[in-house]
Amino acid sequence: MGKRVRAREFGIEMGLLETGRLNAITDVEGVGVGHSTLIEGDNIRTGVTAIVPHQGNPFEEKVTAAVDIFNAYGKSTGLPQIQFEGVIEVPILLTETLNTWRVANSVLDYMNEGYGLVPRSLNVVVGETNGSYLTDNFGRHVGKEQVFEAIDKARTPEGRGPVPEGNVGGGTPMTGYGFKGGIGTASRKYANFTVGILVQLNCGAKDELRIDGVPVGREIELPRPPERSPGNSIMMICATDLDIESRQLWKVAKRVALGLARTGSYSGNGSGDFTIAFTTGKKKVDELREMAQARRRSFSGDSFLSLVYRATVEATEEAIINALFKAETLTGREGNTRYELPYDQVAEVLERQGRSLRK
Amino acid sequence: MGKRVRAREFGIEMGLLETGRLNAITDVEGVGVGHSTLIEGDNIRTGVTAIVPHQGNPFEEKVTAAVDIFNAYGKSTGLPQIQFEGVIEVPILLTETLNTWRVANSVLDYMNEGYGLVPRSLNVVVGETNGSYLTDNFGRHVGKEQVFEAIDKARTPEGRGPVPEGNVGGGTPMTGYGFKGGIGTASRKYANFTVGILVQLNCGAKDELRIDGVPVGREIELPRPPERSPGNSIMMICATDLDIESRQLWKVAKRVALGLARTGSYSGNGSGDFTIAFTTGKKKVDELREMAQARRRSFSGDSFLSLVYRATVEATEEAIINALFKAETLTGREGNTRYELPYDQVAEVLERQGRSLRK
Amino acid sequence: MGKRVRAREFGIEMGLLETGRLNAITDVEGVGVGHSTLIEGDNIRTGVTAIVPHQGNPFEEKVTAAVDIFNAYGKSTGLPQIQFEGVIEVPILLTETLNTWRVANSVLDYMNEGYGLVPRSLNVVVGETNGSYLTDNFGRHVGKEQVFEAIDKARTPEGRGPVPEGNVGGGTPMTGYGFKGGIGTASRKYANFTVGILVQLNCGAKDELRIDGVPVGREIELPRPPERSPGNSIMMICATDLDIESRQLWKVAKRVALGLARTGSYSGNGSGDFTIAFTTGKKKVDELREMAQARRRSFSGDSFLSLVYRATVEATEEAIINALFKAETLTGREGNTRYELPYDQVAEVLERQGRSLRK
Amino acid sequence: MGKRVRAREFGIEMGLLETGRLNAITDVEGVGVGHSTLIEGDNIRTGVTAIVPHQGNPFEEKVTAAVDIFNAYGKSTGLPQIQFEGVIEVPILLTETLNTWRVANSVLDYMNEGYGLVPRSLNVVVGETNGSYLTDNFGRHVGKEQVFEAIDKARTPEGRGPVPEGNVGGGTPMTGYGFKGGIGTASRKYANFTVGILVQLNCGAKDELRIDGVPVGREIELPRPPERSPGNSIMMICATDLDIESRQLWKVAKRVALGLARTGSYSGNGSGDFTIAFTTGKKKVDELREMAQARRRSFSGDSFLSLVYRATVEATEEAIINALFKAETLTGREGNTRYELPYDQVAEVLERQGRSLRK
Repeated sequence: MGKRVRAREFGIEMGLLETGRLNAITDVEGVGVGHSTLIEGDNIRTGVTAIVPHQGNPFEEKVTAAVDIFNAYGKSTGLPQIQFEGVIEVPILLTETLNTWRVANSVLDYMNEGYGLVPRSLNVVVGETNGSYLTDNFGRHVGKEQVFEAIDKARTPEGRGPVPEGNVGGGTPMTGYGFKGGIGTASRKYANFTVGILVQLNCGAKDELRIDGVPVGREIELPRPPERSPGNSIMMICATDLDIESRQLWKVAKRVALGLARTGSYSGNGSGDFTIAFTTGKKKVDELREMAQARRRSFSGDSFLSLVYRATVEATEEAIINALFKAETLTGREGNTRYELPYDQVAEVLERQGRSLRK
Repeated sequence: MGKRVRAREFGIEMGLLETGRLNAITDVEGVGVGHSTLIEGDNIRTGVTAIVPHQGNPFEEKVTAAVDIFNAYGKSTGLPQIQFEGVIEVPILLTETLNTWRVANSVLDYMNEGYGLVPRSLNVVVGETNGSYLTDNFGRHVGKEQVFEAIDKARTPEGRGPVPEGNVGGGTPMTGYGFKGGIGTASRKYANFTVGILVQLNCGAKDELRIDGVPVGREIELPRPPERSPGNSIMMICATDLDIESRQLWKVAKRVALGLARTGSYSGNGSGDFTIAFTTGKKKVDELREMAQARRRSFSGDSFLSLVYRATVEATEEAIINALFKAETLTGREGNTRYELPYDQVAEVLERQGRSLRK
Repeated sequence: MGKRVRAREFGIEMGLLETGRLNAITDVEGVGVGHSTLIEGDNIRTGVTAIVPHQGNPFEEKVTAAVDIFNAYGKSTGLPQIQFEGVIEVPILLTETLNTWRVANSVLDYMNEGYGLVPRSLNVVVGETNGSYLTDNFGRHVGKEQVFEAIDKARTPEGRGPVPEGNVGGGTPMTGYGFKGGIGTASRKYANFTVGILVQLNCGAKDELRIDGVPVGREIELPRPPERSPGNSIMMICATDLDIESRQLWKVAKRVALGLARTGSYSGNGSGDFTIAFTTGKKKVDELREMAQARRRSFSGDSFLSLVYRATVEATEEAIINALFKAETLTGREGNTRYELPYDQVAEVLERQGRSLRK
Repeated sequence: MGKRVRAREFGIEMGLLETGRLNAITDVEGVGVGHSTLIEGDNIRTGVTAIVPHQGNPFEEKVTAAVDIFNAYGKSTGLPQIQFEGVIEVPILLTETLNTWRVANSVLDYMNEGYGLVPRSLNVVVGETNGSYLTDNFGRHVGKEQVFEAIDKARTPEGRGPVPEGNVGGGTPMTGYGFKGGIGTASRKYANFTVGILVQLNCGAKDELRIDGVPVGREIELPRPPERSPGNSIMMICATDLDIESRQLWKVAKRVALGLARTGSYSGNGSGDFTIAFTTGKKKVDELREMAQARRRSFSGDSFLSLVYRATVEATEEAIINALFKAETLTGREGNTRYELPYDQVAEVLERQGRSLRK
C-alpha cells in the first residue's frame, strides 16, 4: 500500500485555531487510544478501537461525560446512564455493528482482569458503525482477545502518542462519503484548554463531500461509482480537559454535529450519528471566563463555552477529513472494494477552487 | 414452597377499570411471553424473559414503539433507535444486568436460526435489573441456550396464555421493596382496547411499599431487615393494540412511572426505571375519540389518550403488586435470602385499614 | 367563609420525614412568595403569584435551576433556556393561562422599576393553569399592577413567612380533583437540607383523588357532580438549598411528578404538568454523601440524591393536599361553582379506612 | 436605498436540488407570510413577521408540527406543547426579543377578531431574536396593530407570493455574521414534495461566514469591524407538504441546524437557535418510499426521509444567505450601524475561489 498522509500534510489547513502537538485526541493529557485490527482471509475486515479517558482506573476515577444523539439509527450502548449520571466509568470501545455486544461483554472481563475489579454493575460504552459492505459482520469476529489488545495499547505511552488512522481498529471496514473511511482524529488548543476529536467515519454519499467548504465529492471520479452501504453512520468521540459540568459538556457535544455538517453530511435517516464527550476536568475555566467577559458584556455564565464550541467544530471537521486522507483502498467481503480518496483529483479540484495547498 | 396467589386472588382489586381475561400482558392479542429460569447450585439464580409483540417475524413486521426513561441508572440496549425510528424489530428480552450483552448477542443468533434472517443490522432490545444479591452475576450464566428457550416459548400458544410470575426468567433473583420480587403482569380493557403491562421488579425500599394506597411496607416485619441490593431498578413493558403513533405511545409510556409511584417508589438514584412500549396497532381509535368528545369539548386531537393513561397506570400498579404476591422466598449467593411478602401480615394491615379483602 | 385548615391541622400526616418550620416553600431560606388576588363582580376570579428565589437581584445573582415537563398541554414560558443554561434570572410568576403573556411582559417592567435594570434580554418564567371555568380568562385582567403587587410582597419579610393557600394569587379560580383547588405548599427537612414545594393545583378528576393513599375522591358526594374544566393542569415549583448542579436538580425535579401520582393523577392529556426547580445552593452535600455511603457501597457519585427525592415526593404530595384543604367554595363566571373539599366526609372516609386523624 | 438581489440573482447556486417557483417558504401551497415593519425616529427599528400554515382557521385545522432546539439562549413561546401534541394551532409570529410577550398576547386578540374564536386556551407560538443593537427594544413598540397587519397580510394572495426579505418585519433590526441580517427564505422541490425555509437571521460572527462553502467573511472589510450584538440568534421556520408524523417531521427539523452549520455558525452559547417545523400534509409519501427502496434495500420505514433532509439542508443554507444578500445597511439606536454584505467584495472572493458566478 502507498503512503497516505493527513490533511495538513497534504497542505489543507481547516479552521482558524491552532492544533495540539499531535493534532489528535491524545493531545488531551492522559487520553490514550488503542486499535486492534483483524484482517483475515477474504471476508474478515474488522477490529475494535479503545479510548481511555486517563491512565487510572476509570471505574474508580469516573470522568464527567455527556452525549449528543443527532440521529439514532444506531446501537451504541450505555448512553442513557451517561445522560442521567453525567459520568463515564469505562474505556470507550468502537467497533462494527454486530460486534457491539460481544465487545461490550468483553469489557466486563477487562475490568476484572485488566483493572482488578469484580464488577457487579457497569455501564459499558460501545459505539458502532456498520461495516458489512467489506466484512462478514454476522460472523462477529471481534471478541475478548481484540478488546484486550485495544485497551492494553491505549494504556501504554504509545497509546498516548500519535493515533493511527484510516483502516485500523473499529474503522477497518468503514466507508466515508463513498470513499474508504475509518478512524480519523484532530485537535485544537486555545487559551489553556485542548479539545480532541476521534471519529469512526462511515457516513455520507460521495456527491456531498466538502473539504474545507469545497464540494470536492461530486467532482471526483472513482473506478466505479460507490455502491451504497447497508448502514451509514459516524461515531464521534470528543475529549477535553476543561473543568465543566456535564450539562455544559453536553452543549459542547452538540457542536460536533456542526463539524460533521461542514463536511457535507445531511445525516441520512439510516445514520447513527452519536457524539460521546468526556472531560478530564484538569483545566480551570477562569481564564476563559475572563476572555469572554472582555469580549462583551455577557448575559450568561456559560458564555465562555463559545470558545470551546469553535474549537470543537474545527477539530471535528478535520478529524473526518483525516479519516479519508489516511484510509487506503480495501477489498473485502464478496470482492467488494472501497476506493481511497484520490489525492491527485482532490488537489486538482482544490486548486481549481483557488485553495492553494500549503505544502 | 407454598402456594402463592396473585393480588386479585388474594382479594385486592386495584383501580376502577376491568382487567383483561388473563389480567396479563398476553391479553393484547398476539403478544407472547416466555421465560427461561436458571437455578443451579448455591450461587446461580438467574434467567431471561422474552416478549414477542406478535406471532410473525418482528424484523419484517416491525411494531410501533416508544420509550420513557424515568431514571437511567441502567444499561438497557436499543433505546435510542426506538426513540428516533418509532419501531421495535425484535423480541424484547429481560435479564440480569451483567448478562445484558451476552443475551443481546444471542438475539442475533435467534433472528438467524429462529426467524431465518441473516441480519446485517439489528436494533437489539434487552432490559436488565441487578440481581447480584442472590446470583453470581459476574459469571454471566445466561446465554444462547436460555435466550432460545425463552423466545421459543413466547412463540407458542402457551406463551400467549397466562404468564408465570415471581421467581421466573429475568425476574429470578430480583428484589421488590425489600421482599422477593421478580416478574409481574396485569392488564386493563376499556372500550375496544387493551393495555398490558409486564414488569421485572427489582426496586424500592421496604418502608415505602404501598398496596392499593395503604402503606403496608413499614408495618411488616421480616425475619431479618432486608439488606440493600447493589442495584435497584425496574423494567416495565407496556403493550397495547391501539392504532396510535409513536409520539402518542410515548405519552402512554410516560404514565407507567405514575403507576410505579402508586406502589410507593420515589425512583432512587441508583434505579434504572425504564418503560418500553409497543402497539400492535390493530384497534382503531375512532370509538375512543368519540367517547372523549362526548365527555367535553376537547382542544386536542389526542385527548382520547387520557382513557389509555388511566388503564396504563392501573395495570402498572397491579403488575408490580402481582410480582410481590407471586414471588417466593429465595436463598442464593453467599447464603443471601430474600423473603416473600408475608400474606398474613398483609391481610392484617389491610384489614386494619378498612380494606375488606374481596375473597 | 368558614375556617379552612391545612392537612396537618386536620390531623393527616403524610410521609415519614419532618416538615420545615412553616411547612412551606418559604422554609428554604431566602425564598419569598407573594400573591395578588383579583375578585371583582361576577366573572373575575383570578390573580398572580410570585416566587422569588432569594432577596437579592435575581438577574445579577442567578440561581441554579432545572425543569421537568411531565406533560405539556401548557404554555409556560422560559423553560427551554433553563434547560440549556441551568439558571433562573427572574422571579417566577404563576397565573391563569390567558394572562400568561401580559404577566410576562410586566416582569420586564418590574426588572426595570423594581430592580433597577434596563433589560435587553431576559428569560421571563411564567407558569399557568386554566381557570376559565370560574373566571373570564379572555378578559386578561391580570397585568402590571398585580404583577408588581405580587413580587413586591414576595420581597417583604411577610413574603418569607407562612404562605397563604387556596383561592389566592394565580390559584384563585383553579380546580383540583373536581373540588376547589388553588395554591398549596409544604416542605421537608432532612439532614442539613430543606425542600419546599408550591403548587398551583388545577388538575385531576374527583374519582381519582387519594389522600395519603386512601381513595377518598370516589366516596365523597358534592352538591352537584363536578363539570369538567377546559384545562386541567398543575404548576409545581420546587425549591431547595443544596449545592448541586442543574443536572442533579433536574433529577430532583422529575420526582415531583411522583408526588403528584400519589394524589391519584394519571396526568390527563389536556394537562400541563410542569415542574420548575431551583436551588439557592447554600448547603454543601458532603454530609449527605457520607450518609449515603454509610448506607451502602454506592456506585454513583449522585446516590445521595435519593434522600432528596424522598423529601421531594413527600412535600409534593402534601402541598397538593394542602391546596384542597385550604381552598374554599367559590362561584364565578356564568354562576359556575367549585365546591371545597368537605371536611366531614373526608374525616369519615379516612376513619373508615383506619386512618386515625392525629388531631 | 440601493437595489439588493437574492443569492441566485447574484449568480450563486447552492446545492443540487431545484428550487420551488418562488424559491420561498410560500412555495408550500397555502403558506402565507406577512410583515409589519416599524421604523420611526432614530431608535425604533423593529417589526413582526407572521407565517400562516394555510388559509383556513389554524385552531380548527391544526397542522402537524415539530420543534428542534439546537441551542436555547432564547425565549420562544409555545414549544413544549408542540413537542407533546405534535400540532400548531396558530399563526407563527417572529419578532424582537422583548416584544415577544406583547406579540403573544395580541395573537389572542387576532384569534378573536380575525378568526372569530373566543379562545379559552391557546398555544401561542412566537419566536424572537435580539435586535437591541439597532432598536430600543425595552420600549416594546410592537403590539396589536403590527400583529394584526402582519397576519392580515399573510392571509392575502400577496402573502402567498414572493416574500420580502432583509430589513422587514421581525428581521428589521437584526444582524447576520456581523453584517446586516434579517429575513431570508428559500425552497426546494423534489419528487412530489416541497420544503420551504424562512429564517430570521441574527447570529454568527463575521469571520465565520461561509457562502457556498467559501470562507468569505474573513476576507471582507467593513467600514468598521462589527461590534458584537447582545444576543445572537436565529429563528428557522421549516414548512413542507408531506403527509408525515410529528416524529418524522422532528427529524426533518433537526437537519435545519446542519444548513445553518454550512453557513459557518458554531451556534454560540448566547444564541437561540430554534427550528419550528410544520407540514400541511397534502402530499403522500408513497412515491418517495418507492424511490428510497429502489436505491437500496432499506432497513427502515423512514428511509425516504433522507431525501427530505437534503432538501431541507439546502434550503436552509440558501435562506440564510438570502437574508444577507437582501438586507441593507441600517443605522439605528444610539447611531449604531450594521453594514450590508458588500457585493463587490463577495464577488471578488468567490471568483478568486474559482466559483464562477452564474449571472
